Amino acid sequence: MDWSGLLIGRRLANQEGQARKITALEGFTAMGLDGLSSSAYGPEAALTMLIPLGAAGLSQIGPIMAAILLLLVMLSFSYWQTIAAYPNNAGSYGVAKDNLGANASLLAATALMIDYVLNVAVGISAGIGALTSALPPLQPYTLPLCLAVLAVIALLNLRGTLEAGIVFSVPTYLFVISLGGLLIYGIVQSVAAAGHPAPVVPPPALPAAVETATLWLLIRSFASGCTAMTGVEAVSNGVGAFREPTVKYAHRTLLMIVVTLAFLLASIAYLARAYHIGAMDQTQPGYQSVLSQLAMAIAGRGMLYYVAIGSVLCVLCLSANTSFVGFPRLCRLVAQDGYLPRAFAEPGRRLVYSVGLTWLTITAALLLILFDGITDRLIPLFAVGAFLAFTMSQTGMAVHWHRQRQEGRAHPVRLTINAAGAVATGAALAVILAAKFLEGAWITVLTIPAVLVLLKTIRRYYDVIDRQLREEGPFDIGSLRKPVVLIPIRRLDRLAEKAVRYGLMMSDEVTAIHLTRLEGPDSEERADRLRRQWRLDVQRPIEAAGAPPPHLVQLPSPYRSFIGRLLRYVAEVRERHPDRPVLVVIPELVKAHWWDHLLYSSRARRLRATLLRHGGSDLAVVVVPWSLAPPQPEAIIEKEEPGLEPAAANAAARRG
Amino acid sequence: MDWSGLLIGRRLANQEGQARKITALEGFTAMGLDGLSSSAYGPEAALTMLIPLGAAGLSQIGPIMAAILLLLVMLSFSYWQTIAAYPNNAGSYGVAKDNLGANASLLAATALMIDYVLNVAVGISAGIGALTSALPPLQPYTLPLCLAVLAVIALLNLRGTLEAGIVFSVPTYLFVISLGGLLIYGIVQSVAAAGHPAPVVPPPALPAAVETATLWLLIRSFASGCTAMTGVEAVSNGVGAFREPTVKYAHRTLLMIVVTLAFLLASIAYLARAYHIGAMDQTQPGYQSVLSQLAMAIAGRGMLYYVAIGSVLCVLCLSANTSFVGFPRLCRLVAQDGYLPRAFAEPGRRLVYSVGLTWLTITAALLLILFDGITDRLIPLFAVGAFLAFTMSQTGMAVHWHRQRQEGRAHPVRLTINAAGAVATGAALAVILAAKFLEGAWITVLTIPAVLVLLKTIRRYYDVIDRQLREEGPFDIGSLRKPVVLIPIRRLDRLAEKAVRYGLMMSDEVTAIHLTRLEGPDSEERADRLRRQWRLDVQRPIEAAGAPPPHLVQLPSPYRSFIGRLLRYVAEVRERHPDRPVLVVIPELVKAHWWDHLLYSSRARRLRATLLRHGGSDLAVVVVPWSLAPPQPEAIIEKEEPGLEPAAANAAARRG
Repeated sequence: MDWSGLLIGRRLANQEGQARKITALEGFTAMGLDGLSSSAYGPEAALTMLIPLGAAGLSQIGPIMAAILLLLVMLSFSYWQTIAAYPNNAGSYGVAKDNLGANASLLAATALMIDYVLNVAVGISAGIGALTSALPPLQPYTLPLCLAVLAVIALLNLRGTLEAGIVFSVPTYLFVISLGGLLIYGIVQSVAAAGHPAPVVPPPALPAAVETATLWLLIRSFASGCTAMTGVEAVSNGVGAFREPTVKYAHRTLLMIVVTLAFLLASIAYLARAYHIGAMDQTQPGYQSVLSQLAMAIAGRGMLYYVAIGSVLCVLCLSANTSFVGFPRLCRLVAQDGYLPRAFAEPGRRLVYSVGLTWLTITAALLLILFDGITDRLIPLFAVGAFLAFTMSQTGMAVHWHRQRQEGRAHPVRLTINAAGAVATGAALAVILAAKFLEGAWITVLTIPAVLVLLKTIRRYYDVIDRQLREEGPFDIGSLRKPVVLIPIRRLDRLAEKAVRYGLMMSDEVTAIHLTRLEGPDSEERADRLRRQWRLDVQRPIEAAGAPPPHLVQLPSPYRSFIGRLLRYVAEVRERHPDRPVLVVIPELVKAHWWDHLLYSSRARRLRATLLRHGGSDLAVVVVPWSLAPPQPEAIIEKEEPGLEPAAANAAARRG
Repeated sequence: MDWSGLLIGRRLANQEGQARKITALEGFTAMGLDGLSSSAYGPEAALTMLIPLGAAGLSQIGPIMAAILLLLVMLSFSYWQTIAAYPNNAGSYGVAKDNLGANASLLAATALMIDYVLNVAVGISAGIGALTSALPPLQPYTLPLCLAVLAVIALLNLRGTLEAGIVFSVPTYLFVISLGGLLIYGIVQSVAAAGHPAPVVPPPALPAAVETATLWLLIRSFASGCTAMTGVEAVSNGVGAFREPTVKYAHRTLLMIVVTLAFLLASIAYLARAYHIGAMDQTQPGYQSVLSQLAMAIAGRGMLYYVAIGSVLCVLCLSANTSFVGFPRLCRLVAQDGYLPRAFAEPGRRLVYSVGLTWLTITAALLLILFDGITDRLIPLFAVGAFLAFTMSQTGMAVHWHRQRQEGRAHPVRLTINAAGAVATGAALAVILAAKFLEGAWITVLTIPAVLVLLKTIRRYYDVIDRQLREEGPFDIGSLRKPVVLIPIRRLDRLAEKAVRYGLMMSDEVTAIHLTRLEGPDSEERADRLRRQWRLDVQRPIEAAGAPPPHLVQLPSPYRSFIGRLLRYVAEVRERHPDRPVLVVIPELVKAHWWDHLLYSSRARRLRATLLRHGGSDLAVVVVPWSLAPPQPEAIIEKEEPGLEPAAANAAARRG
């Protein structure tokens, strides 16, 4: 049973890659979920900061949301032209690398990676948290529900970004239509009532003011609201996922996401004020989210309410998907530069970067398990990474345009947009850091350099090994003296026969080594019988055939050691033949079933591993196999290259 | 840090084996703990069955204990002469194999194995149970305490039977001296008082009789009391552990165990009657064991009481040790005959059969965990195995003497003793089965055939493979045609250079295979550059040196498959050269640190494994290593053969 095939589908060929790229339709769901879902918590986060102001707070939400929207629009313009300028690699990492150097790009990459992981854990647990507070009997299953959602998202993404985009488009478009419809209906009502609509279900009264508005309070409200913007960079990081013409589809996706998000944010802010809806204290009983109050005020607790709130829950859960699109692609770029294990850069059977995907899944699962599915405390850690990456990317673009100007191709508007974006996002980052540092953002601030050091250490190790292996100039083949062949044997059987045959093929100096006393003090030895048999059944027929007869050396192993004993013997052979390489031919029963591992020792495997590791540089190991079940190469080939004709397969070979 | 060395000690040489064998002094503790400890629960078990008879029950314990002692004496005589007749292999398995055939011997072995495992779990949990009922605050730690005792016993036995015997001798001899002294003091008191001694602390009054003595009740009491006899076979199963002269030490050990046990059993029964002490209902509050009542009646709740009862607890816990001596040795014999994986027959670094030992530890730990450290319900499963093995062994010996008589060497006394032993233990087995079948003995009755089938299946599989591998007559070396060499390469580096060098050493037909498009649809290829480099840096210098230049074949791998692709190419090579073997030379970076496994792919390893398993019979794999850290053969040698001089090591080699 091929479970992996059932779960994630058959292996895809390279040429199927182009057809599996996405358009704006799938891009909107695959990359937009993070951004769109933030409309469910961004305005609420800003309003929560305004609770101490009571009813007066509502008059502040307008300007704050205007500032957020302004930043959003600036950011979108910036990313728009980043995508146009770097059609292949528009992410913060690539842009920073090209314009600010390796360290800056790693800083951006680290920040984004951390943010992506947090986004998965926080998104899923927020969605499930909203679900269980709507359906309290589900409360005890919070963690399993979180992990199940994580598994579904991971599995769909392992099948492909396209599949995830298609499957998740149902809840996404349902969300946009139902919530959008609700908000438009509310705006119409409000305009018709000259800004004072009558709520169907009146929201709870706002608490009395305990403070007056200070600049610091407004700044903190703004910083909290900025979480609504995370996810906007996803399109530029995932440009590689789009079909040709890449830039067109990426632009279209970015536009769709930003326009939708801006509309949702603006109308929520407008309607909150119109219906006199403020945030409620989440720790108090009877808590209702801003969106829930709003939906009830506009449409009552009817069908529309449940559809809209249901789709909000869905989209919150699925906001993790954006990370699944961005994280593996980011890791691939970093790995290609040697800062992450190379496996991150290899496309898996479905042409997505499965290693990064799996890594993201495991890390997020660990976070969820660690926090028992309730990751509220992680929210302040969030957004720092995104805004740091925003800033690096914008700064990089500003440098880019500046350089172009020096080369005589001035783009003053573009430079201005990106420079303004850099300043704005940098300022927002400073605000966020200041406002949330003590609440937990310091953890992010400490984690980033740790990850950065790790990435650089990886690169340094790769460099050391690559320097050792590097070969400049022509191959030096040396004198090609015949090797000395050693064959450890336990008895004379067909496997030993096969090993001796291979040994004679490769050298005229073949020695079989039989270790005696391996079975311990209480065993009977048949060492003499083996010696007689060797003369009779091995040396004599081979001599008769005109070949040099192989020797037999019987070594007592008083400590029942076979690896140490052979290493000693190899050292001895080296002394006698310092200029000849050593080949150790290991006859090996190849295990084919799980029970074979219980029934047969792993001596051959351990001997091989130790010889390869500690045998020295002029030693190679020849493994002569005897498989415990018939070989089935066709099954392997069919699994790896489904449906490929053998003729077609090797036709393209180039021989030289 | 060599943790295993610290825990279980350095590796022992074969010739140290004899010096590490045990005498009767260690044998008494290593093998006798099971037997001795049963004095703590055997009489109590018999008395528990007599509770319904009230005070009248005490008059029955005399005859019942007399029957048990008679059986014990018969059994000891039988084992005495079994040890003399089979000085190398006196266990039930060996005796049954020699006289009753393979199936009977496997039945005996299975029964004993099950009993040994149960003995460990039941012994430890009984000891810890007694401890926690004496010190109730320890109650919540029952399972950890059980596992800790198990770990200590297992570790000491991994160090060696000798070490376990020496360490456990302190509690064992303390037990014998304190309990024996107490009992002798009681007997003296009783005799002085003409059989009616005055108790220091009077025991609780016996309950009123609710039944009268029936034969069935007496039989069940006898069957329960027979649990006192398990462990008597341990000496004969462990004969291999004794120093020369084996028989003398084994006889002496058996004698010491049986005499001590018989004395303890007899005096407990006598004193229980003298002091009017009966068993109490264990499920009722205020329960006290028979031994505890007895000790208080004789000596009061003083120092002596605590020492004696404390040593009883200790010995109960350590009764598991007998299994640790017997089980691995039994498994070794069964494995030598091919009914268990061969690893069970290999002596470990300390010359004990570590695999069997570890297996016993794991199984017992699982039982303890499964039953949360309270294995009361397993007690009825017990004893069935021991008595089945007794019966098989006695029957085997009876057949043995019968055969000797047919050969003219009549031993009528010996025959009579073993035949009587067979009948008596067989009858006891029937009684135990009848009395305990419904209480749980049926589980043992069902488990035995299941294990038996498993053992025979293992043997059948070994036979099938051995038949395939068997080689009769002289080796057939064939025509020794030069192999075709294939070398998968990724780039031209020193590792590839080394692989090409080895390839040219072994054949003049060397082809390097470079798979292209492995990196997926979005990667840049440097295939053409590699071709140019190959011509320039490989083919040209090799041709100049006069050797046949290796070919380069570049194969596109549209599915990014490297294993399937190579298997296809191997099939193609086979078609072109049907009579030449194929050697695949794999250049392999050998991982030396844990992080290497994260940083470097396992492609070489997977390729090697699949080629060995599915490459077909005329293919061998040559692994050319490049170790990521310097080799350290000395460390391996020193670990495996501590302190052995190189000169001494190979001096004994026999060359031919």
